[in-house]
Amino acid sequence: MSATTADTAVADRVDADASDPGTSIEVQVTDAAHAARRASRTLARQTTATKNAVLLAAADALVAQTAPILAANDRDIDRARAAGTGESLLDRLRLTADRVGQIADGLRQVATLPDPIGDIVSGKTLPNGLHLRQVRVPLGVVGMVYEARPNVTVDAFGIACKSGNAVLLRGSSSAAESNAALVAVLRDVLTDHGLPADIVTLLPSADRSSVTALIRARGLVDVVIPRGGAGLIASVVRDATVPTIETGTGNCHIYVSASADLDIATDVVVNSKTRRPSVCNTVETVLIDAAVADVALPRLVSALQAHGVVIHGDEPGMEPATESDWADEYLSLDIAIKIVDGVDAAIDHIDTWGTGHTEAVITDDLALATEFTDRVDAAAVMVNASTAFTDGEQFGFGAEIGISTQKLHARGPMGLPELTSTKWIVWGRGQTRP
Amino acid sequence: MSATTADTAVADRVDADASDPGTSIEVQVTDAAHAARRASRTLARQTTATKNAVLLAAADALVAQTAPILAANDRDIDRARAAGTGESLLDRLRLTADRVGQIADGLRQVATLPDPIGDIVSGKTLPNGLHLRQVRVPLGVVGMVYEARPNVTVDAFGIACKSGNAVLLRGSSSAAESNAALVAVLRDVLTDHGLPADIVTLLPSADRSSVTALIRARGLVDVVIPRGGAGLIASVVRDATVPTIETGTGNCHIYVSASADLDIATDVVVNSKTRRPSVCNTVETVLIDAAVADVALPRLVSALQAHGVVIHGDEPGMEPATESDWADEYLSLDIAIKIVDGVDAAIDHIDTWGTGHTEAVITDDLALATEFTDRVDAAAVMVNASTAFTDGEQFGFGAEIGISTQKLHARGPMGLPELTSTKWIVWGRGQTRP
Repeated sequence: MSATTADTAVADRVDADASDPGTSIEVQVTDAAHAARRASRTLARQTTATKNAVLLAAADALVAQTAPILAANDRDIDRARAAGTGESLLDRLRLTADRVGQIADGLRQVATLPDPIGDIVSGKTLPNGLHLRQVRVPLGVVGMVYEARPNVTVDAFGIACKSGNAVLLRGSSSAAESNAALVAVLRDVLTDHGLPADIVTLLPSADRSSVTALIRARGLVDVVIPRGGAGLIASVVRDATVPTIETGTGNCHIYVSASADLDIATDVVVNSKTRRPSVCNTVETVLIDAAVADVALPRLVSALQAHGVVIHGDEPGMEPATESDWADEYLSLDIAIKIVDGVDAAIDHIDTWGTGHTEAVITDDLALATEFTDRVDAAAVMVNASTAFTDGEQFGFGAEIGISTQKLHARGPMGLPELTSTKWIVWGRGQTRP
Repeated sequence: MSATTADTAVADRVDADASDPGTSIEVQVTDAAHAARRASRTLARQTTATKNAVLLAAADALVAQTAPILAANDRDIDRARAAGTGESLLDRLRLTADRVGQIADGLRQVATLPDPIGDIVSGKTLPNGLHLRQVRVPLGVVGMVYEARPNVTVDAFGIACKSGNAVLLRGSSSAAESNAALVAVLRDVLTDHGLPADIVTLLPSADRSSVTALIRARGLVDVVIPRGGAGLIASVVRDATVPTIETGTGNCHIYVSASADLDIATDVVVNSKTRRPSVCNTVETVLIDAAVADVALPRLVSALQAHGVVIHGDEPGMEPATESDWADEYLSLDIAIKIVDGVDAAIDHIDTWGTGHTEAVITDDLALATEFTDRVDAAAVMVNASTAFTDGEQFGFGAEIGISTQKLHARGPMGLPELTSTKWIVWGRGQTRP
């Protein structure tokens, strides 16, 4: 699940206080990437048992080190408060003993997941007797650029470690001391297990130069995954020379068709909007078919208003809509509503404004459901179900590194297999090619 | 299979003659990308039968239109000859009635391949009754940037069309008239079948501005695949904001281990170097274990020299090696030879200089073979087999769009499934998320 744009705001504000980028940051990041690359070669050869032992030991160590972790977090909180950060953003940054316990439980959960490394994805024997196996291998070095929440630091380590990847973490400067304390614990555990500490490295976060160095470390870093607000993601994807995976921007729609069951429509729209408005799988626009608008519109408006949702649109009594109401995520208790004339108009609207995250239709008509799921181009297309289900845990992946909204490599919620590549192993007896 | 650096040379020379980029090229490319996007939505909904009918009709039409295609090609050849292009490069550019026939047969071959679109990659029913299917879908719009050979124009169309993708082709300016003639035939066939001609579009090639516009058309183009020399590929990958797939740079090694069967070593090294020196799966460096160098070195040198291969390296009688001999592809009848002290030294050399394409070991030792295939990080790792086998046709894919040397999305030879993505289709009965 993505962080909200509010996270971006806090990161921007604190980052703006920093000064003097200097080339030394670039050197530090490049050195860290080289060290991560060497460490990744060692990690790639570890057994599942070893990786699980590290994850379980790390969970125990985090709990054991709760006091120094919370002390570091207190310093981050004090600094953020002094910089004028509001309470809701401070809450994202704050760690407690309970939250440290939950973070540790997350590592224990990753230890229970199947290890994708070494799976044979496909294989065959060629007519000339060559034996081919396509085997799942780690990507190598994964870079993460993310915002305020310190739990991402440990989550990313857990998923990367289990899938055999070294990880370079560039968190928010607002969480710098918390992240440093967490990573120190993780590195100690790695060393205790005879593994290179450089399997996990926290990069400097005082200014943007470490982001730039990370996303341009082509040949050293195999993928960079940005997690956070739309601005952060767009800038990483635009400026990177390293391959990136675009995550988490979700301008999601629900099309209430002419054949919709209005009880289902109401339940699904309200759940998709109000369950957790700040996350990427929230619905932002409802498209109501003109054929049922007379009945459906007042019913949906009243149900949404009863949950404190502000309605934007072109109909009487709504907040007047501008282009931004169709184009942007609210990530708040706001929603846009538009009357559309049939499924073609609904799909045209989604093609124009959607971000390819999650699109849903409410219908009892099999032909329409098939038409919608065939034609709509998105990571997830739902029929009669809440958009809130687009989520790695809901899909049964056990862990999630983000939700990809691009089509290359991975699309939709990403679990452990999405942090892997493959290689072809070809076994012969001296065959040459005619 | 990649083109050679010689192709780059011809493309650079002819391109340098062009003038006045102008913003109109950008507008043309952006308009073409919008049109391709619209066309891709229509193509994505066609049945396999319709796509196969288009491919077979296109094959027939190319044969029927051989005369105007060859006339256009003659004009390209005359222009290239007037610009001082050498005979071997002219030969790459040249079409004949036989070659047009082969190009048409390539389309017929793609028509026989299984259609990946609509395959259900995975699926499950969640505890709450939601039915999930992960279905293979086209990427959407594929951009190709390639060099002199006009056959790539038709091959790329065939593979893209079968996998449901619209394609934007930016060929070499040296082949501009040939490409235009080929694409005109393809577009007519599409129109005859009631499909949008914009499923295939040839972009202007007079200067580099069309490449720049294509690789920055983020949101319109889903992937750009460069095919050609290392310089072309590097510049596309570096400057693109659209996702790219890096192809075809192959600095491939063969490690002749202490336990190598020297008959196999000799056959495999000679085949890997001399079968077709200009392509990316050619071996460029042989690493000979010090334990067998006394016998293996003179034997390999004499076998290679008997095939006209020039030996580079640090040993007496070789052309003295510089860093470039270890770092770069020769793509010619040259090879570098180095004596290494054991498997760790061999793998270190490959880690340092390899491009992640194909690496091979010659050994009779099972533990060593396993060590090498486990540890070497490349798209293909061979044991006792020629590096020349890394090829889509050899691997049984039936068609190949290139050989990916990156780890994201696709690694190694890319066939039809590598030009697809997936989407999750989720079917419910009004489920909401607690």
